[in-house]
Amino acid sequence: MEELIERIRLEGRIIGDTILRVDGFLNHRVDPILMRKIGERFALLFKDEKVCLVLTLEASGIPPALFTAFALNVPMLFARKRKPITLGERVLERRITSRTKLEETTITLSGDYISRGDRVLIIDDFLATGETIKALCEMVEEAKGEVIGIGVCIEKTFQRGRDRLQGYRIESLAKVDSLKPLIVRP
Amino acid sequence: MEELIERIRLEGRIIGDTILRVDGFLNHRVDPILMRKIGERFALLFKDEKVCLVLTLEASGIPPALFTAFALNVPMLFARKRKPITLGERVLERRITSRTKLEETTITLSGDYISRGDRVLIIDDFLATGETIKALCEMVEEAKGEVIGIGVCIEKTFQRGRDRLQGYRIESLAKVDSLKPLIVRP
Repeated sequence: MEELIERIRLEGRIIGDTILRVDGFLNHRVDPILMRKIGERFALLFKDEKVCLVLTLEASGIPPALFTAFALNVPMLFARKRKPITLGERVLERRITSRTKLEETTITLSGDYISRGDRVLIIDDFLATGETIKALCEMVEEAKGEVIGIGVCIEKTFQRGRDRLQGYRIESLAKVDSLKPLIVRP
Repeated sequence: MEELIERIRLEGRIIGDTILRVDGFLNHRVDPILMRKIGERFALLFKDEKVCLVLTLEASGIPPALFTAFALNVPMLFARKRKPITLGERVLERRITSRTKLEETTITLSGDYISRGDRVLIIDDFLATGETIKALCEMVEEAKGEVIGIGVCIEKTFQRGRDRLQGYRIESLAKVDSLKPLIVRP
């Protein structure tokens, strides 16, 4: 997606060896016009998959996931990074390591909102090591739903997340092959 | 807003003395069509205010804030509940107590994205005690921006958040006067 790639080239900043900071338009300040275009792109890519739910992880996955769900006219569900006391009884959970906050987190999801046979599209801002998205896939499958695909805005190919997600269809809108120098391609 | 009020009456569940669980359409599973209508309503209410930024707090404030920002054609900024290592140097922060997670949290915002004179609209899912929204107001003012108004989807009037936010224009789309019994009005 040319517009996203251009924004990454112009505004992305590199922190350390693995972090690409894009908080001017994607994960802190958010450009809603760009997010809508991203949502429409994912909806088009997965239009034949009979998606019934879009799933993401709070917080920065929510903007692209919400516009994807809007374009597909289905609900959006976001996993939480801590267990709020309002989550109810049937809880799905997994431990993951946050790459940008350097700590372990438990991600949780109410089992009330995924049912057997549900066709779930997972959307996130980044694909890095694939650990988070793999956890989301496992939670869907634990609830007997089916992951019909994964859409990510930015894939950091050098962190090899695809290796962890073999067997799933993955669509990324911008691929970052290297940070130093910054190499971005469709 | 009649549609929101109807959803609260039909789907809201009461937990303890102060919590209204609406995670079927607002803050866990999200109805994007309803969120878009909410965003359009806020945009209409504040259309003459020359808003240049919509501010919210992750995660459940993001859906209504994003559609409000989309309708106003301005960026959306979300405060974070922990300080990610990607946030940059100029950081604004405040301590708040989360009502639904029963612990203290630091909320943070990059000072890079609010400038002197910016006209900021704050959007959130709930107004309860007003502590969170008051913290957001203080952060905007610390950066020399101006809070031109506050829009919340659901105001729990019995928690008296307005008392803490005197001097600000507040628009709420549904007012909950009592949980037991559940009393909701426009």
